Amino acid sequence: MTPARLAGVLAPVVTPFAADLSPDPVRYLRHCKWLLANGCSGLAAFGTNSEANSLSVDERMVLLEQLVQGGVPASSLMPGTGMCALTDSVRLTRHAVALGCAGVLMLPPFYYKGVSDEGLYRNYAEVIERVGDSRLRLYLYHIPPVAQVGISLALIERLLKRYPVAVAGIKDSSGDWNNTQAVLEAYANQDFDVFAGSEVFLLQNLRAGGVGCITANANVNPAAIDRLYRGWRTRDAERMQAEVSAIRSVLQQYPMIAALKAAIAHYARDPGWATLRPPLVELTTGQYSALTNELASRGFDMRGLGA
Amino acid sequence: MTPARLAGVLAPVVTPFAADLSPDPVRYLRHCKWLLANGCSGLAAFGTNSEANSLSVDERMVLLEQLVQGGVPASSLMPGTGMCALTDSVRLTRHAVALGCAGVLMLPPFYYKGVSDEGLYRNYAEVIERVGDSRLRLYLYHIPPVAQVGISLALIERLLKRYPVAVAGIKDSSGDWNNTQAVLEAYANQDFDVFAGSEVFLLQNLRAGGVGCITANANVNPAAIDRLYRGWRTRDAERMQAEVSAIRSVLQQYPMIAALKAAIAHYARDPGWATLRPPLVELTTGQYSALTNELASRGFDMRGLGA
Repeated sequence: MTPARLAGVLAPVVTPFAADLSPDPVRYLRHCKWLLANGCSGLAAFGTNSEANSLSVDERMVLLEQLVQGGVPASSLMPGTGMCALTDSVRLTRHAVALGCAGVLMLPPFYYKGVSDEGLYRNYAEVIERVGDSRLRLYLYHIPPVAQVGISLALIERLLKRYPVAVAGIKDSSGDWNNTQAVLEAYANQDFDVFAGSEVFLLQNLRAGGVGCITANANVNPAAIDRLYRGWRTRDAERMQAEVSAIRSVLQQYPMIAALKAAIAHYARDPGWATLRPPLVELTTGQYSALTNELASRGFDMRGLGA
Repeated sequence: MTPARLAGVLAPVVTPFAADLSPDPVRYLRHCKWLLANGCSGLAAFGTNSEANSLSVDERMVLLEQLVQGGVPASSLMPGTGMCALTDSVRLTRHAVALGCAGVLMLPPFYYKGVSDEGLYRNYAEVIERVGDSRLRLYLYHIPPVAQVGISLALIERLLKRYPVAVAGIKDSSGDWNNTQAVLEAYANQDFDVFAGSEVFLLQNLRAGGVGCITANANVNPAAIDRLYRGWRTRDAERMQAEVSAIRSVLQQYPMIAALKAAIAHYARDPGWATLRPPLVELTTGQYSALTNELASRGFDMRGLGA
């Protein structure tokens, strides 16, 4: 059975690490459950903000299994499975589909730069063919500011034409609304689901035919982003958009992943949450205080987090 | 026992693939032996030009073991072991040291961009500490045009101060002679071995205190590059440099890895060599003809390759 398509607010779940830098499955499961209970309709585990690219293939597979065994419905999961090595992407994708995940979010191979659409097409086509499972729902992950290698409209066109069922949508983290709009205009009517890569574009995306957002800040502000998602047709929509964008503007003054973990550490009263794996580093003490003070001054809270 | 430090001409060995895109150990071993018999003093297996970033950790480990079992001396090997995930870098590095490799060539973690020297320091320090083996000789891999994340002089300084034995040198593939020169001036007198990332800079590098080059074209033109290495103090040096640079200029009109594989396929009379893994693609038929015709017109050959 194929799980229903995901829509709404998805969090690229931040990955907690123990003091020895190993992934911490207990904190991870607790945070995933808090997210699903507080506005997230799904979890894009192993996204950029998850430090997924600092995890090995085996570490990802073990964490994903622990989530499902711990009671997180696989039908809420859209794990990241796009790696530099084709064989790794196949292995992770096959594993996610076998677990019953609703979809996978797939980076292009990102080490080699200036690669052709032909090469990227072959990469995605090989993964789809090798996984060979009709349950596969693949979301393309377009994040040129980080991956440097992007997903062009011509590539989407070609993949959709050949694999109209498996290729289910895209996360557009280009930060460029013109690109999101072009994708929506070209493919939203072809059962191709467009997620904005930031809640800053959520209202625009929904008005133009998109299905939601997959956004870093859903890790800390899921309820308010979900209210905007549910209320986007109401007259409060602009105000709700302004409110979630204002909270984002506080966090993005800092390195984003470190800021998300600092906020969780603060509201969960759990300093261990602030740990990052190299090459990323935690906020300085001064940054930590400035961030948490500014959030407090805006009445921000993460209710039930430390419970 | 610690193998002697490598110097001279090292090839980032191109990795042959079978028709099903799996690594081909037979062609690989044969090419490695040809390289060592024809001018290469060492093999930087799993470099950028090896499509190493399109291989899984397990695929690399298996290939490396097959090389050693097949008679390639571990003392000639400097495999690439720098991955995005710390745990992968540790696993590959530990494996290479256990096999007796002369060194490892280590990319910084390259997915996250704009990372700090502190984060990169922690990455390399964690690898060195976790491997925990006095035989480790680590060469930093600076290739900002591809990895986007580079190795600053301040980072070298800090690593050399803390790990003066383990941190053995650098491959500078910045393409910026000013950077190579600055590294040489600062650290060449501290038992820190500087390899140019292209034979185009070999003579300059040797004159300024460097120890050799690790270069794509050593896959196809090792003997001539090695003659320059051995003869750099002779009055023929400038002419030899011009000759190897001229051959490079032919190949680099094309995507480099595809061009190297096309040249090998041609001279080995083995079309299978031209296969690349996605996201890279082989030369077009027209490019293949143009490249091989131009090489032939210059009297270029790869003697003994198909034997």
